[in-house]
Amino acid sequence: MDTPLNKIIEAARGLTPCDYLLQGGHVLNVFTRRFEDVSLALYGGMIVGVGERPANKVVNMEGCYLVPGFIDGHVHLESSMLTPDRYAAAVLPRGTTGVMAEPHEYANVVGIKVFDYLQRCARELPLNISICVPPCVPATNLEHSGAELTAQDIAACGNYANVVGLAEMMNYPGLLGCVPEVLAKLEALGENCHIDGHAPGLSGWDLQAYAAAGVSTDHECTTLAEAEEKLALGMYIMMREGSVAQDLEALAPLVNDINLERCLLVTDDREPEDLYFKGHMDYLCQKAIRLGVKPAHAFIMASWNVAKCFNLPKVGALAPGYMADIAVLQADDTSFKHGFTVKSVFKNGRLVAEDGHMVAEVPSIPLESMAHNTINIAPFKTEDLQIKVEEPGTYEVHVIGVKEGSLISDHLRMSLKAEEGELKSDLEQDILKVAVFERHKALGTRGLGFVHGLGIKGGAISSTVAHDSHNLVVVGDNDRDMSLCVEETKRIGGGLVVVSGGKVVASVALPICGLVADRTLEESAKSIQILHREAHKLGAKLARPFMSLAFMTLPVIPHLKLSDVGLVDVDKFAFTRLVAGRIG
Amino acid sequence: MDTPLNKIIEAARGLTPCDYLLQGGHVLNVFTRRFEDVSLALYGGMIVGVGERPANKVVNMEGCYLVPGFIDGHVHLESSMLTPDRYAAAVLPRGTTGVMAEPHEYANVVGIKVFDYLQRCARELPLNISICVPPCVPATNLEHSGAELTAQDIAACGNYANVVGLAEMMNYPGLLGCVPEVLAKLEALGENCHIDGHAPGLSGWDLQAYAAAGVSTDHECTTLAEAEEKLALGMYIMMREGSVAQDLEALAPLVNDINLERCLLVTDDREPEDLYFKGHMDYLCQKAIRLGVKPAHAFIMASWNVAKCFNLPKVGALAPGYMADIAVLQADDTSFKHGFTVKSVFKNGRLVAEDGHMVAEVPSIPLESMAHNTINIAPFKTEDLQIKVEEPGTYEVHVIGVKEGSLISDHLRMSLKAEEGELKSDLEQDILKVAVFERHKALGTRGLGFVHGLGIKGGAISSTVAHDSHNLVVVGDNDRDMSLCVEETKRIGGGLVVVSGGKVVASVALPICGLVADRTLEESAKSIQILHREAHKLGAKLARPFMSLAFMTLPVIPHLKLSDVGLVDVDKFAFTRLVAGRIG
Repeated sequence: MDTPLNKIIEAARGLTPCDYLLQGGHVLNVFTRRFEDVSLALYGGMIVGVGERPANKVVNMEGCYLVPGFIDGHVHLESSMLTPDRYAAAVLPRGTTGVMAEPHEYANVVGIKVFDYLQRCARELPLNISICVPPCVPATNLEHSGAELTAQDIAACGNYANVVGLAEMMNYPGLLGCVPEVLAKLEALGENCHIDGHAPGLSGWDLQAYAAAGVSTDHECTTLAEAEEKLALGMYIMMREGSVAQDLEALAPLVNDINLERCLLVTDDREPEDLYFKGHMDYLCQKAIRLGVKPAHAFIMASWNVAKCFNLPKVGALAPGYMADIAVLQADDTSFKHGFTVKSVFKNGRLVAEDGHMVAEVPSIPLESMAHNTINIAPFKTEDLQIKVEEPGTYEVHVIGVKEGSLISDHLRMSLKAEEGELKSDLEQDILKVAVFERHKALGTRGLGFVHGLGIKGGAISSTVAHDSHNLVVVGDNDRDMSLCVEETKRIGGGLVVVSGGKVVASVALPICGLVADRTLEESAKSIQILHREAHKLGAKLARPFMSLAFMTLPVIPHLKLSDVGLVDVDKFAFTRLVAGRIG
Repeated sequence: MDTPLNKIIEAARGLTPCDYLLQGGHVLNVFTRRFEDVSLALYGGMIVGVGERPANKVVNMEGCYLVPGFIDGHVHLESSMLTPDRYAAAVLPRGTTGVMAEPHEYANVVGIKVFDYLQRCARELPLNISICVPPCVPATNLEHSGAELTAQDIAACGNYANVVGLAEMMNYPGLLGCVPEVLAKLEALGENCHIDGHAPGLSGWDLQAYAAAGVSTDHECTTLAEAEEKLALGMYIMMREGSVAQDLEALAPLVNDINLERCLLVTDDREPEDLYFKGHMDYLCQKAIRLGVKPAHAFIMASWNVAKCFNLPKVGALAPGYMADIAVLQADDTSFKHGFTVKSVFKNGRLVAEDGHMVAEVPSIPLESMAHNTINIAPFKTEDLQIKVEEPGTYEVHVIGVKEGSLISDHLRMSLKAEEGELKSDLEQDILKVAVFERHKALGTRGLGFVHGLGIKGGAISSTVAHDSHNLVVVGDNDRDMSLCVEETKRIGGGLVVVSGGKVVASVALPICGLVADRTLEESAKSIQILHREAHKLGAKLARPFMSLAFMTLPVIPHLKLSDVGLVDVDKFAFTRLVAGRIG
């Protein structure tokens, strides 16, 4: 801490006045799990006292509920499409004072240099940013990413002050198969380092092997039984409620007096619209309470338990010796049954937000090498998008089937009639062409395929947010509009594009790594709204067509995906040919 | 861990046979807090599986209760009068597989060099020895100790692998008074290091200041209210049940589903007889259960909670990824209402004890510089013990009043009639002379005083175990026998002595620092029994007269104590003259 110990002690003893006395509120004690009607004395950024004290400033907290500032236990900041400084300004007024950040997306684009940037953000922003190093960059060898993180790179990350461990070990097949490079990564940050898990559906002996290897958390549980099995092995259960996956309803019944200490709330991925219109951890807490979790338990899962899980010192509780990171809530009563609003937020003992707005300055962190143009696509012609066949007739093709609210795609086999020596989109069957362009090193690799279920007519949509390698994915019913998407993406330096009838009708520039904009949350949320509106005008069937795009490229999620190298049969973890055969 | 990760994973997955399968027992799951009827698979020193597995050796555990090996959360190994290797051999058969050792007594005699020795013990013994560095050596400046630990010394201790934090910060007045040397010690091991507390009765703002300074545990609670106040501040409550202080009965009601995670069982001081005849942590668990603590809770307080409190990796639970440190218990049923016996013990996956006896070798750790003779008393004559007065008559003297079962002495004022120009012991009033000889550096300092309540006639008893500076304390009704105690102490290189009518009738040599013998627990316990018998023959009233001796010299416990420099009025934290005045 920056404040000398003697000053802390003197203020705690009431010998010198505190900076603030927050008086008259209901204060959550995470140790007794009760709200207590006491004052909190703050000095030098810390909580130094519970109860009255002489103070320079007394703040009336009557009717308010004071809880530890929220800490998101697992989040990819990139999914907010905000830089960390903009992110801090967006979530602090929501009561969030800390995040366990996993820069998986940044790292897939720019590699190890993201850590310099994030460490600087952590040092200078009024948000506690702890960093978990992603061990799976790239996620697979079935695609080209912008960068790689080797075991040596990961070991080097151990030198950053805010690195607290290894992030989600998604490559559990590699771990279970004892692939040497995978095990080297597990051990790169030292023998007893924190390792986050990511093991959807893993069970039995394999799950136990995963835990025995040192993995201590999981945020992929979707059923109570799965969570119970993992919890009984001592894993922390990160209950996820993000934009992409929502597991809280299924998992909330796990929380009771005994299990509480191993339950956390995390967002994983939270997109601009959700962050802006619904909220961050404040939203998760309210949802958990609606689902029957006791209010004190919900707040503890969003603060103290995260601190314990990651062994973060001096945060997560409102008690002497802890940082004064405080969310001040307004609610009708202790049941919180009508929800709550975040009235004000203290970070390091300083009032930083009031009534949903920042009142403290958030410094702007220079992007430096993060801002370099990362869109680097090899020259191509529209004709390169053609899928040619040698003979006329009807072909059976492998088609990616997408559905509302699911990252899992179906592996369909559908019939397409060749036209002019080509296989083209077929609007009647809702079969659209999809292409993935390598966009990091101008390698010129391109994957082509078909998708069913998107419903776009007379245009194309594209994105450089395309997990996990974040190549450029484009879907459309005609090559010309698809081609224009690519050109527009180049022009804006990466981002999301909607083209209709040969014209760009909407775009969101994401010039930072092709993932993030240097804009406020409000600006980002509203521009995404417009983008969605334009995509829906084209007939897009899904509520969030760009999310479907973003996960159509992720070859670790079943069943059929497309990378820049080709079509991937995820169940076989191998490439498959687009055309299954000629059937007539 | 020494076993390669791939081997662990393969054994966990059942691809290679485990070393042991412990089959058919009831296994405590510290996460669900339930006993579960499952097998445990051990490989390479670790638990790799819960449930069946192929194994090289299957052990039938039917009817047994398997719990994590006990970890004593706060113990001065010296009070066992055993070297750490002998200690390991003594407590492993009791189910203890780890200790948080605080070498306060050794350090007061030999200073920093004890850490080399303890670190070697930690490395080579089949007992997990974590070391907390004592911050209060010497305890006060009202006495001469053998050594000092400065803030620089403490910082240097941070380099030892097994040092986990700072031990009990007894000098809370110094902390609260912001004495620079005290604060420097608090910060010597780094900003967020673990700091054990020791703050009997501290409350309110001062207690909060103590917590704000980073102290996170306390083992001095004697009432429920005191423990509740400390727990609500987030402190871990170490419920102590030692030879000297027994707080479990008062504190057991604190334990419930919510508070459990902050409650620990610790012994603090456990002497040879108690260790041998009653037990170690096994005794504490049984006592806690008798006092109404749920069995699962008691075992968790004796293992998992200690691991969490000190952030010890990979111990304290029976789950994949944890060291295979296991106490196998036999009991009538899950209520444990008739207690239990420790049937066998596994340490690092190896069977080390069965039916109360070691079956594995415990290496003997060379004492090296620890074994040097530390008894170094300046030459003196029996006449030096005389307390002379210039005029005949009756004098009022300050007398230390001792009572059964209490470290707190009364500050009495009693009358003594001068005989032959001296104040002597007065058997009718049970007033005995007491002397404390500096014994580390032959400084020649000697404190003289009187004690009431010991009841010795026609002899003397002495000890070099005399908290916290461990000078030589001797009590008797005549100077000749007291003098012989001193001579015998020199001859045996430190220890406990009983002299009757000019003859040494019993002695226990403690040649290692004057604190510890190189003997087995059985030998030590039985020799202490003999010693006590001889002291009682002399008329000693207290059950454990040597314990009274050992604390008669501790000037941080109220009310009147004697150091080698003189009589200390603890309430004033200052020296006081022996003679209050002449009253007739």
